[in-house]
Amino acid sequence: MQRVANCILLKDNHILMLKKPRRGWYVVPGGKMEAGENIKDSVVREFNEETGLRIKDPELKGSFTFIMKEDDQTVQEWMMFTFYTTDYQGELLEVSEEGQLEWVAVEDVLTKPMAEGDRYIFNHILASEEQVYGTFVYTTDFQLIDQDLDPSRPM
Amino acid sequence: MQRVANCILLKDNHILMLKKPRRGWYVVPGGKMEAGENIKDSVVREFNEETGLRIKDPELKGSFTFIMKEDDQTVQEWMMFTFYTTDYQGELLEVSEEGQLEWVAVEDVLTKPMAEGDRYIFNHILASEEQVYGTFVYTTDFQLIDQDLDPSRPM
Repeated sequence: MQRVANCILLKDNHILMLKKPRRGWYVVPGGKMEAGENIKDSVVREFNEETGLRIKDPELKGSFTFIMKEDDQTVQEWMMFTFYTTDYQGELLEVSEEGQLEWVAVEDVLTKPMAEGDRYIFNHILASEEQVYGTFVYTTDFQLIDQDLDPSRPM
Repeated sequence: MQRVANCILLKDNHILMLKKPRRGWYVVPGGKMEAGENIKDSVVREFNEETGLRIKDPELKGSFTFIMKEDDQTVQEWMMFTFYTTDYQGELLEVSEEGQLEWVAVEDVLTKPMAEGDRYIFNHILASEEQVYGTFVYTTDFQLIDQDLDPSRPM
């Protein structure tokens, strides 16, 4: 099972996002966990590889299960662990191999093109201190079929 | 990859533990995540199946990666998500299929026989509000070879 760890880095009311070349969708930096890694080590390593920055004290805010379905059959399942921090060291890469890095104002985040389920995640984590858990069901061409967040709204 | 979700339920300075028949080791109730489940749904379902109780508002406190090694080769890897709560509904099962249920005083928890790495986990989560992340390396006969907790001590 694939597992992904990523991090929302907030600075001066902006979050650092990565515009992925394939669909032009925005994500926060992160990537696949390696064998034997724990989720915090993964997110620190992946964030550094994609941005040049070393995030400090990231805290886990969201734990999600994703399912991709085709003709009612699950064809893929993966997990995503989303951290949050406001602290980092280092200099931002001018060019990332993974896409285009951009500081996006918090109020503009939801206007960016992105996977539909990610809007729920950003909306929740940017509005609330508490942890959130969720399940998202997608088609193989990344149309969101179903989602279930717990709690269902930011409190 | 196998994923396990479990929960420390604290009530009147006792936590609910399960003594597993195979080795006589103590664990907190929980079990394997099912396909498509998120970690919170898993822990609520598993805790209920093993104890008859319905935990309320469990909060994720620990996320761990376990590796089992034989002759320096990784033969198994799994993840464990440990929640914490003080609130529940329902009546405790008199007999659980999974082992013997027992309310253990917090100060006695670490004196019980258990997987060596679990002592680090209980020690941390019972002493601290913050989340903890970790990696544990075991032999195939469950001797702890290495552990790395982050933060390394409860703060």
